[in-house]
Amino acid sequence: MLSKAQISLITSLQHKKFRKQHGLFIVEGVKSVLEFLSSEYQIHSLYTTAEARTKMGNLPQKLKCITITTSEFQKISGLSNPQGVLALVHLPTSENFDWASLKQQHNLLLDDIQDPGNLGTIIRTAEWFGIPHIICSMGTVDAYNPKVVQATMGSLARIKIYYTPLADFINRAEMPTYGALLDGKSIYETNFGNAGLIVMGNEGNGISKEIEETVDHAVTIPRVGNAESLNVAVATTVFCSEIARQKMKPS
Amino acid sequence: MLSKAQISLITSLQHKKFRKQHGLFIVEGVKSVLEFLSSEYQIHSLYTTAEARTKMGNLPQKLKCITITTSEFQKISGLSNPQGVLALVHLPTSENFDWASLKQQHNLLLDDIQDPGNLGTIIRTAEWFGIPHIICSMGTVDAYNPKVVQATMGSLARIKIYYTPLADFINRAEMPTYGALLDGKSIYETNFGNAGLIVMGNEGNGISKEIEETVDHAVTIPRVGNAESLNVAVATTVFCSEIARQKMKPS
Repeated sequence: MLSKAQISLITSLQHKKFRKQHGLFIVEGVKSVLEFLSSEYQIHSLYTTAEARTKMGNLPQKLKCITITTSEFQKISGLSNPQGVLALVHLPTSENFDWASLKQQHNLLLDDIQDPGNLGTIIRTAEWFGIPHIICSMGTVDAYNPKVVQATMGSLARIKIYYTPLADFINRAEMPTYGALLDGKSIYETNFGNAGLIVMGNEGNGISKEIEETVDHAVTIPRVGNAESLNVAVATTVFCSEIARQKMKPS
Repeated sequence: MLSKAQISLITSLQHKKFRKQHGLFIVEGVKSVLEFLSSEYQIHSLYTTAEARTKMGNLPQKLKCITITTSEFQKISGLSNPQGVLALVHLPTSENFDWASLKQQHNLLLDDIQDPGNLGTIIRTAEWFGIPHIICSMGTVDAYNPKVVQATMGSLARIKIYYTPLADFINRAEMPTYGALLDGKSIYETNFGNAGLIVMGNEGNGISKEIEETVDHAVTIPRVGNAESLNVAVATTVFCSEIARQKMKPS
């Protein structure tokens, strides 16, 4: 049985304001919830239908599990095809930068990415290509937005996401900085070295003036056809893939 | 003034069945409609609000333009933020394959791609990287679905899309065929030559057994991190980018 207060709490978490207030976010779906259960995240509680509960296997004894009916589940789900599994997860406490790790990696910096689907796809893609840290400008869409969580397909459970003013971060990092810009050097002729910061800009406006000034290397994905632009998750993919290629097979 | 019959016709075009029946599809937004106006597509009619009409510049004299109110426009728009510009465009008549052109290119083959956003992003990305032909299996989502049209950002106006049984096409093409598969050769060590067929599989199931048997080269995007899979538009991007790189800078 689901109380009105529980429904109200859970549905409020669709909004950033209430995620901050309660320190919780929503993860839905069998696979995604299992990924969070085996991650460093702390699970607050798990809501399942009786049928979906059987797909979850053995759960930690301490975990607060609430079994509800399918019609109750529809009241809390944000998906058009609910899978019957929804976890409330504690937001991570803001962490200090792990400079020792950051300095040895290529790290993605996102300058005001707005679309939840784009951010989710970027997080999933970054994980595939072995980029463990994503640093977001304060204006980037919240990574704990349910649409972002969904699009990461579980990768959010393992990738470290930071929100911080990017210009400060770039200054402190003192690492080579590469920006996705027009009229830069071809990405295929750019040597990304062993570590660096890769800056991707906003969907409509690209990298902001303030951040562009801190970029050491303007890098461009050469255009062969007539498309006016690339989707930002697609452009990020080209950067991640090229960096991975260079590390595997130095040219 | 918009008649009930007009509203009913336009909204019916959200569905493939009625697009086929009327031979029409919907293009929305100032930029996308302008791209189709300057393409080989035949425009049936254009609906605009008075305000949005001013953003369209000079239009062909023969074009049937209907100015409607903002509240009327909301009845026909499929977008959450309507821009006040909607064109009905004639579906292309099914064309014979342009083998002379196909044989000199890398062509994308899509084996039952289901998500409209993925297909739209693939069309836009293919155009950026200079891939002018996309051959879709009969089970692939309809490219004239309004969500696909929207996601192509105008690229649909210029890219040739064919729907045909893929196995037959591959047999007739007699070109080297590369398939995105697990446990293949690294994409970064694959030589794509000057022309070929690049097969991308369904979101959940990958390339079907029937098509896999026709693939000459199994190609894999090496995984560095722990993500279980890549989004299919992201995987297609890696193929398009690597092919473009090899053509620009033979390694």
